[in-house]
Amino acid sequence: MKLAFSKYHGLGNDFILIDNRAQRELLVTATQAQQLCDRHFGVGANGVIFLCATTDPACDYQMAMYNSDGSVAEMCGNGIRCLAKFIAALESHALDQAWIYRVQTLAGVMTLNLQTDGRVSVNMGTPKLLASEIPTTLTEPDQKVIDIPLDVAGQTWQLTCVSMGNPHAITFVENVAAIPLAELGPQFEHHSLFPQRTNTEFVEVIRPDYLKMRVWERGAGATLACGTGACATVVAGVLTQRALPQATVELPGGCLDIDWQQTTQTIYMTGPANHVFDGVTDLED
Amino acid sequence: MKLAFSKYHGLGNDFILIDNRAQRELLVTATQAQQLCDRHFGVGANGVIFLCATTDPACDYQMAMYNSDGSVAEMCGNGIRCLAKFIAALESHALDQAWIYRVQTLAGVMTLNLQTDGRVSVNMGTPKLLASEIPTTLTEPDQKVIDIPLDVAGQTWQLTCVSMGNPHAITFVENVAAIPLAELGPQFEHHSLFPQRTNTEFVEVIRPDYLKMRVWERGAGATLACGTGACATVVAGVLTQRALPQATVELPGGCLDIDWQQTTQTIYMTGPANHVFDGVTDLED
Repeated sequence: MKLAFSKYHGLGNDFILIDNRAQRELLVTATQAQQLCDRHFGVGANGVIFLCATTDPACDYQMAMYNSDGSVAEMCGNGIRCLAKFIAALESHALDQAWIYRVQTLAGVMTLNLQTDGRVSVNMGTPKLLASEIPTTLTEPDQKVIDIPLDVAGQTWQLTCVSMGNPHAITFVENVAAIPLAELGPQFEHHSLFPQRTNTEFVEVIRPDYLKMRVWERGAGATLACGTGACATVVAGVLTQRALPQATVELPGGCLDIDWQQTTQTIYMTGPANHVFDGVTDLED
Repeated sequence: MKLAFSKYHGLGNDFILIDNRAQRELLVTATQAQQLCDRHFGVGANGVIFLCATTDPACDYQMAMYNSDGSVAEMCGNGIRCLAKFIAALESHALDQAWIYRVQTLAGVMTLNLQTDGRVSVNMGTPKLLASEIPTTLTEPDQKVIDIPLDVAGQTWQLTCVSMGNPHAITFVENVAAIPLAELGPQFEHHSLFPQRTNTEFVEVIRPDYLKMRVWERGAGATLACGTGACATVVAGVLTQRALPQATVELPGGCLDIDWQQTTQTIYMTGPANHVFDGVTDLED
């Protein structure tokens, strides 16, 4: 079967986008998604994202997504920015005006704001801060986890933990470039104090409104960008009085602007999404 | 500028193929090729191959190629098998009969035989064996380089060198899976005794007609397959009396059949090439 698709990336986190509006069943199975994501034998991507029709009158579209290993993804901050650009291209929406898309996902309804500067702003929801919500046993279940010391690899690290729907452990360091990420990352990820494992962010404060971050993602390792990690990093910066609630986070793949609105506690993430190419492939059965 | 391309792979060694027959100048610069080959921000590939018109009456086509780092490639065994399939698709050649294509490359004229089994057999020419031809200063210029010791990374390696139009240094090992390729590869590639750098093959002899090989490619690093490397490996195996001139080489991406015909000294390589997708991308200036 011939499959038309488009390839986008958000800060180097890259996705195969498929227009699935014409039918209910997904055009690609989990196994086929895994093959498509292979970077040598397939198209190559971090995931496959489907634009689907929705029956929910409060939404414009529905999103479905596979990770590169074929597992179902609830949502993905970089992926959903790519989806906004894909929708605009499919609908031939003029880019000299802003567009709002309400997208139904497994993590709830996401509101995507395609700005006139070409960037996409996404409501990322409200951070959860209690140890039981992360989850971690670093402190008492009903306490926040702020600068709690943890010994890893013969050193003591001050950890601040934030859940953005997934767990993040943030530690502030003097020189983030010097962190041996591949060595340390797995030791945090699999530490017994994190019963559902954890994403780990190492962060250098350049200015209170500019943080430099490297991330070790749970199940994915070192990646070029992590949207929920950037949000969690700013929250941790505010909780420890190192950063402002409006700050830019520089990741290996580029920058995200984070805005933690203090009145509503809602976090908005704004960043780029780039079209790479359009393609047609033969799907193997 | 819109650029149409096709993506193929030969044993997981993957290429962007471009029809460049309509103009003399290449449609893509070295810098653009490098961007296209990026696996997160671009299309992703091991190289970019151009099908060009030829003025040589003895040839049907000409080939040009960039490696993923933007350097010019003389020729590539996996790439040229992909080129044969690309030509057949462009020319709408029926695949139930065999086709012969004569292609001018920087490494000489290559004759490609697209077989009815879908595999492509390539006359890879005659190996060059003198040190000056590799080139290497491992031994005297007019001598063959057979099991010459070289110290790299605190160990002594017995090197046999073969030029297939590009330089190869082959070393036979007990257990090829245990070789720390990413650590050793660059130290061979950039060794001062190889003035034009070198491809490096680590080879385990399973049987005289079945060799298991891992390769560090000059300018590309660890790859899933290297056609000229497979040829050079069988030549090195014959020169050191470890292998037969007709042998299968198992690479990480799959198998190649190599036939070093002793009367003519010509080497034939037979293997698969697979179409992955057709695409259109916006080239950045």
